[in-house]
Order: sequence, then C-alpha cells, then structure tokens
Amino acid sequence: MAADYVHGYSARESQRLTDQATTLADLLLADTVYPADARVLEAGCGTGAQTLTLARQSPGAEIVSIDVSLDSLAEARRAVAAAGCRNVTFLHADLFTAPFAPASFDHVFVCFVLEHLAKPVEALPCLRRVLKPGGTITVIEGDHGSTYFHPDSRHARRAVQCLVDLQASAGGNALIGRQLYPLLMQSGFVEVRVSPRMVYVDGSRPALIDGFTRKTFIAMVEGVRAQAIAHGLIDAAAFDEGVRDLYRTAAGDGVFCYTFFKALGARSRNDPSQPSPAETSPDQGGEQRVQPQPTLR
Amino acid sequence: MAADYVHGYSARESQRLTDQATTLADLLLADTVYPADARVLEAGCGTGAQTLTLARQSPGAEIVSIDVSLDSLAEARRAVAAAGCRNVTFLHADLFTAPFAPASFDHVFVCFVLEHLAKPVEALPCLRRVLKPGGTITVIEGDHGSTYFHPDSRHARRAVQCLVDLQASAGGNALIGRQLYPLLMQSGFVEVRVSPRMVYVDGSRPALIDGFTRKTFIAMVEGVRAQAIAHGLIDAAAFDEGVRDLYRTAAGDGVFCYTFFKALGARSRNDPSQPSPAETSPDQGGEQRVQPQPTLR
Repeated sequence: MAADYVHGYSARESQRLTDQATTLADLLLADTVYPADARVLEAGCGTGAQTLTLARQSPGAEIVSIDVSLDSLAEARRAVAAAGCRNVTFLHADLFTAPFAPASFDHVFVCFVLEHLAKPVEALPCLRRVLKPGGTITVIEGDHGSTYFHPDSRHARRAVQCLVDLQASAGGNALIGRQLYPLLMQSGFVEVRVSPRMVYVDGSRPALIDGFTRKTFIAMVEGVRAQAIAHGLIDAAAFDEGVRDLYRTAAGDGVFCYTFFKALGARSRNDPSQPSPAETSPDQGGEQRVQPQPTLR
Repeated sequence: MAADYVHGYSARESQRLTDQATTLADLLLADTVYPADARVLEAGCGTGAQTLTLARQSPGAEIVSIDVSLDSLAEARRAVAAAGCRNVTFLHADLFTAPFAPASFDHVFVCFVLEHLAKPVEALPCLRRVLKPGGTITVIEGDHGSTYFHPDSRHARRAVQCLVDLQASAGGNALIGRQLYPLLMQSGFVEVRVSPRMVYVDGSRPALIDGFTRKTFIAMVEGVRAQAIAHGLIDAAAFDEGVRDLYRTAAGDGVFCYTFFKALGARSRNDPSQPSPAETSPDQGGEQRVQPQPTLR
C-alpha cells in the first residue's frame, strides 16, 4: 500500500526542510563520516537536505542518492552542484525496486524516510541486501510522541496529534523513532545500536528557539492545518489555539523538547547475498518486492 | 500548603530508591564533583540514595545533608557510615527554615525534591540565600510526561498518568523536569544551563531493562496502585492492564524512554546577602519564610 507524503512538496516545505537540516546537522549527522572510496547509498534523499552534509563530511566517498520524486531530485541536484560537491550521483529510483546489484554498497543512509512507509519492515531487508556483508546502515527518524513542552497545553498537544493521525492515515508512522531498534533487528541487521538525539530548547538557546521550535516543528504543524481540518480531525479555532500555545513555548520562559533517534546496524558477514526462499514471495524471484511504489521523499 | 510525599516511606520504596540511584548514578551524578574544602548543602537527602555518590565523588568536600524525615535521615546516616564516608553531616531540618547563615555554602545540591513541593519557586530563593555569591546550585528532577515506549499502550499511559495526578493532588508536580530553566531564572539564579539526561532502554541494554524500566519506573507505578484506586482515578483492572503493558515494553523487542533534567545555576556575585524588603513577608524578618513545613524526602 502506497503511503502519501504527508508534508507535501511545496516551496515552503522545502524551506522548512532546509531550516531543519541546518539546525540539526550537527546533532544528527556530525558522527556520520564515511571513509574515502566507500560507496554509500542514500535512500530517499528528497530535496537533498541531508545530502549536502553527507557529501561535505565524506568528500572521498561516492554517494548515490535516490528518490521517487523527480522534482525533489532536481532540487537536490541543484543544491549539491551549487555547493560544488562532485561526489554525489542522483538516480530516480524506489528503494524497494532500485536497480542495484546485491552487496553493491559499503553503507546505506536513510533519514526521515521510514516514517512515511506503510511497511518499513519490508523496506529494510531490501536495503540490507544491497549492502556488502559487514556494511552498515544508518537510520535517522523523529518521533512526534516525544514532544513535550512548557507551558503544557491540551490544545497544543491536540494540534501535534493531528500530525500523528494524518501521517497514520497516509500509511506512515510519526512515532517510528522509538521503534528503530526492533525494526532493524526484525529486518535481519546485527550489532544494532540506537542513540537518541534530544533537542532541548529553553530561553538560553535562542538559535534553537528560532531554528527548531519555530521554523522546524511549529512550521511542520502549521503545514498540515488545511489537511487536518479537511479530514475532520479538528476545527480551525481549536487548531489555531494549539498553534498559538506552541508559539507560547518559544517565549523566553518556555521550554520545548523533541527527540530524534539514530540507529546504526550492520549486515552480518554471514548473511548470504541471495535471499533465502522464505524471504522471497512465491510469485516472484530475486530482489523484486511486491510493494507497489511507496512514496519516498 | 504542605505537599505529601507521594511515594511513601516503605521498605520496598527505600529499595526502589537504591536501585534507581545505582542505575542512574553515572547518568545523573558523574559530572557533579566538588572541590576539596567546598561546603555543600544537600537539601532533601531522603534515605541517602544520592548522598553516598556525592560523598564518594567529592571526598574532600564537607557535605551537610538535611531532610524533614527523621526515619529517612537515620537510614541515610547508616548507609553513609557503612560505606566508611566521613565527610557528611546529617541534620534534621526543612529547607524553608533551615538554621543556616546567609551565604554559608559554596554549593547546593537538590535531587528529586522540588517535584514534591507545592511552591518550588518559593523554595529556590531560600536555597539561593544560603549560597555564597558566585556559588552554584545543582537541581535534578524527573518528568513523567517524558515517558513513552514501544509498544505504545493507552492503558500504560493511563497508569502513568495516575502517578502524575496523585502527585498533583498531593501538591507536587511530576512534570517539573522540563520547567527547571524558568524556575531557576524566576528564583534569581544566573548562568542557568539545563541538560536533559535521557534514559533510553532497548533489548541491547538488559541492565537498564532490569534496573530502570522494571525496578525503577514500573516499580514506582506499581507503588501507587492502592492510592490510585482509592482516589477513584482508575479501577483495579485497568490499572493492572496498564502495568502489564508497561512490563511488555521491557521485553527484548520493547523500548522505554524517560528523561531526567539536570540544571546548574549560580548565585550572582552581585546578589546582596540580605533579601530585599520585597522578598520578605511583612510579618517576619530575615531568612524565615511563611511556608508551613512542606515535606521533603
């Protein structure tokens, strides 16, 4: 079942993703550095919000970034070219059916993608198989259920819940961050370690108030206003009150908390390059999966 | 208004506090080390769960630990003596009315105390005044609203909410962790920095599953079962289902998250040692406060 991309593809959303990536690059990506000559697959690069950081931090690595949206790919390509990075190849492909040979990458990187998939536990084995045995996967996801703030507000919590409900009704899962460990284990990865990356924002951190609380998180909530009302999840007045209360947490005496989860796992050195019969549906062979085109960004 | 101590004073609760302190000592206290000859006030030492770590990590400091419970003090004294620590003095005193001269401590340490006070914003200035100008305060609190887990469960969330509601009805605040920054700022401290300390527990961390999820958190929830039912917050079956679902998060494919908050603040070097008239109630002078004996642990 295809999952719709809940955040849409507007220019405003693209700006939000860039603001988010700039604010969060250190927190989420500083420890992701690939050695020279490593071949890295970025699955679901979207508009390239993370691609640029990856490319800059690992100038000797060869990065292959795929996405299902041609528009997003074009934007990612422009951004990376404008920054003068020459170690990224962009490909229009779906992670379930991408035309890569088994065991053809040293590392896989997936950021803010699984949350939009109906069955992440079917996507992850596809990524495992394109990894060389011993190669690693890095997965980064948020978890909207990790959101809390001061002053607490029932209305603000309801507005955030709209985002969770919309993502669920689109076939995704906005609470996926906390699930990365079991998901990777169930998908056959080994040596899985998850490290939470909490964003804590108070009056002593004005850059985070602006870059994260306002321009990343509240902007994301505001971005689903029309959808939330159209889906009958909330009425306009209640939604707007929730957003007002979220902005209240960005005052000097407010506090805002959100946690991302970063998982690192490996493909076992004993993992056979071809899937076992049990891993392949009876009506198809090889690496192809039944999944009809879930939407990545 | 006095706040009752929601967790009670049973032997089981004392064991829980010791399990909690052992598991969390590194996470919460590793960076609290006082220089030789520093005079440190531990306000609300309870049964000494943190006192022992403080005393061992700062063997040259002189620690004065106060509490309002004579039984807790006796237990703390025994534990510290049994460990051979000789740098702690125990005193039966209330932090609002403790018999200390203004500016008589280099540092103040308060852990899991403010959450049980009706008006923490009145307690903190009392602690500020016993600090020397330039001295620091360390405050550590949990925040039950930071709890989330996998598998998610409405019943489990309801059981946790009982704890929050009971603490509120006893005059405390189980969501105080997120508020440390504004509380310390409003209480006249300067250079306030808060660092969240998240406990993330998954199947790769069996010691935390046992020491934190089961023996610290779930034990705490189970400890209020009778109170929660007696207060009509929940019926027995629903509570027990919630607890069962909490134990489910301690399985190998479960995940449990909780965040403590640690704040460090300072008394300004320009802060006059005597309170201004505005800070003193008209019917009393000096350091005494109107507050009638809130219960610390």
